[in-house]
Amino acid sequence: MSTAGQVIKCKAAVAWEAGKPLSIEEVEVAPPQKHEVRLKILFTALCHTDVYFWEAKGQQPLFPRIFGHEAGGVVESVGEGVTELQPGDHVLPVFTGECKECTHCKSEESNMCDLLRINTDRGTMLNDGQSRFSKDGKPIYHFVGTSTFSEYTVCHVGSVAKVNPAAPLDKVCVLSCGICTGLGATVNVAKPKKGSSIAIFGLGAVGLAAAEGARISGCSRIIGVDLNPNRFEEAKKFGVNEFVNPKDHNKPVQEVIAEMTNGGVDRSVECTGSIQAMISAFECVHDGWGLAVLVGVPNKDDAFKTHPMNFLNERTLKGTFYGNYKPRTDLPGVVEKYMNKELELDKFITHSVSFADINKAFDLMLSGQSIRCVIRMEN
Amino acid sequence: MSTAGQVIKCKAAVAWEAGKPLSIEEVEVAPPQKHEVRLKILFTALCHTDVYFWEAKGQQPLFPRIFGHEAGGVVESVGEGVTELQPGDHVLPVFTGECKECTHCKSEESNMCDLLRINTDRGTMLNDGQSRFSKDGKPIYHFVGTSTFSEYTVCHVGSVAKVNPAAPLDKVCVLSCGICTGLGATVNVAKPKKGSSIAIFGLGAVGLAAAEGARISGCSRIIGVDLNPNRFEEAKKFGVNEFVNPKDHNKPVQEVIAEMTNGGVDRSVECTGSIQAMISAFECVHDGWGLAVLVGVPNKDDAFKTHPMNFLNERTLKGTFYGNYKPRTDLPGVVEKYMNKELELDKFITHSVSFADINKAFDLMLSGQSIRCVIRMEN
Repeated sequence: MSTAGQVIKCKAAVAWEAGKPLSIEEVEVAPPQKHEVRLKILFTALCHTDVYFWEAKGQQPLFPRIFGHEAGGVVESVGEGVTELQPGDHVLPVFTGECKECTHCKSEESNMCDLLRINTDRGTMLNDGQSRFSKDGKPIYHFVGTSTFSEYTVCHVGSVAKVNPAAPLDKVCVLSCGICTGLGATVNVAKPKKGSSIAIFGLGAVGLAAAEGARISGCSRIIGVDLNPNRFEEAKKFGVNEFVNPKDHNKPVQEVIAEMTNGGVDRSVECTGSIQAMISAFECVHDGWGLAVLVGVPNKDDAFKTHPMNFLNERTLKGTFYGNYKPRTDLPGVVEKYMNKELELDKFITHSVSFADINKAFDLMLSGQSIRCVIRMEN
Repeated sequence: MSTAGQVIKCKAAVAWEAGKPLSIEEVEVAPPQKHEVRLKILFTALCHTDVYFWEAKGQQPLFPRIFGHEAGGVVESVGEGVTELQPGDHVLPVFTGECKECTHCKSEESNMCDLLRINTDRGTMLNDGQSRFSKDGKPIYHFVGTSTFSEYTVCHVGSVAKVNPAAPLDKVCVLSCGICTGLGATVNVAKPKKGSSIAIFGLGAVGLAAAEGARISGCSRIIGVDLNPNRFEEAKKFGVNEFVNPKDHNKPVQEVIAEMTNGGVDRSVECTGSIQAMISAFECVHDGWGLAVLVGVPNKDDAFKTHPMNFLNERTLKGTFYGNYKPRTDLPGVVEKYMNKELELDKFITHSVSFADINKAFDLMLSGQSIRCVIRMEN
């Protein structure tokens, strides 16, 4: 019996207020409108960004809301004008979209779509400014166009990547955000050469994905930088083969790294968002050819500050967003890299819980135990 | 009669003290030692860097000294171990060298040779720490390994580029420094696409050379930024087709440019060395793909400062030195671009004086009348 065109009642994990445990509720999910698709979510992972907006510290709070943006699912039905997807397609919803028509989508270099670029303040659909979620007639807000902590969700078609149906969604779901962000920062932006050196600042999920990119690229020295020495052992699985803890040294970590590498690393990737780490990541690359890539999101009032001679000595500084991947165009290829065993994903998934236990995923992340915890929607 | 192996007596323009007019003197030029060559200079141009070190404000003064580093000449004789050059070769001495053996020379990306990188503090030859110039038995210091304000000079072989003997040295001599610096900043580093937009900060010789690079690259909008409105008329010859004077606006020039270009230029090149211009040049490029290139040399105490989100929105900032050209490897090809009329040089050469009138070249530069004044050594 088709559910297309009808309101679906299903379970969703609703955040009623900031910082309070999610509550599994029966909600109503309206049919997709023009240029929208409704997805049945099968697996969703938890990312720091969910936690950050759930805690709602220093932001405009928007509740009740359904979080979740790393996920894999199947298309249930499509709205008017949708031709690229059909029911049954395996997909990854993505927090930032690709309209394929704006100047950014038409540029080979940018993935910052004008229409569907991440917007954490918006809690409704673009088409009519309304939510597709409700409970007892009252709307529940969307989150970054995905809201995957629900058995069914509605997304703009531009925010949904169609992938190989043979790919296991309980694994490739983590490509929707953090893993691609770090991986792409290395392989698409830093582009280290085989045999080169790289420093990775921050060994959380994004940093480990950056290291995985360095491993795939054949870097010979992958230097992990983190204030937590416990992270090094885990990081070895991701190719990190040297470790620097800034706390162990009396001089700036950029000087420590320059001494270790005869003048600086070839590449660096900054995944913490700390402004001091950003400056160190830039200043630790070698003159003449060094390239530093910024990934971590800074605070509003931070200022990046360095002596301009550090640039004039032929260093480069670039920032990246979602690893420079265009979600619809590029994600299918990343999934293929996993399928042909070039890219390892299983090691990122340290935990798995049932949907009923979704709050445990939050506990695991907040206590620093998990890299990624995958939430099973069906069992 | 060969002069090889002998001391040559010739005329040189000696700077006896900071800021005082040069004095044409008869000096003695010793034969080239190991890995050195002695050149007969035919044409030399004056560059701001000569003037800067001649004025010696805020630096350790080193006098008496023979300045000059943009020049064309012919090899008179070669020292031990020199195999790449022989007497009669047409050459351009360059202020920064290429040993072809260090990690920088072996890197495809760098031209910052470890051995022969510019060193403005050194006034002697690497081989023995002595000067090859003297008068009445007292040494006269070299300048950046070139000292071309002399009928004869001695250079390290790594600082000398062999060029097509058919090339007119009175024109291609200007490639030794400023013109390649600006040209390469655009064509080697900014690499603008055909039809794209570019902003050039500073319309002196280097900035005009950056504009010439943009013209060659087929940029459709070449926006010149300068505090002096008189420079725009001249700049039109170099492809500049729009002009912004920061003094004409009440808002930061980066905002003015962003408004003119629907969000920012595709590329920018900063040729003034002003820290505020550097920040503006970076912040005026478009998010998603914008790339800014820093060329101008800042003050010692300057700090480059910007909000890190300007990077995270996929902007890139790079510095360059001598346009990323490797002098020996790349200069012959730049000369060929002039020979096949792809690159226009004649328009840079606004004045020409005889060697006896070398101080007029200083006056023309200090009064802002010349782009390049070529000094004829022989007549």
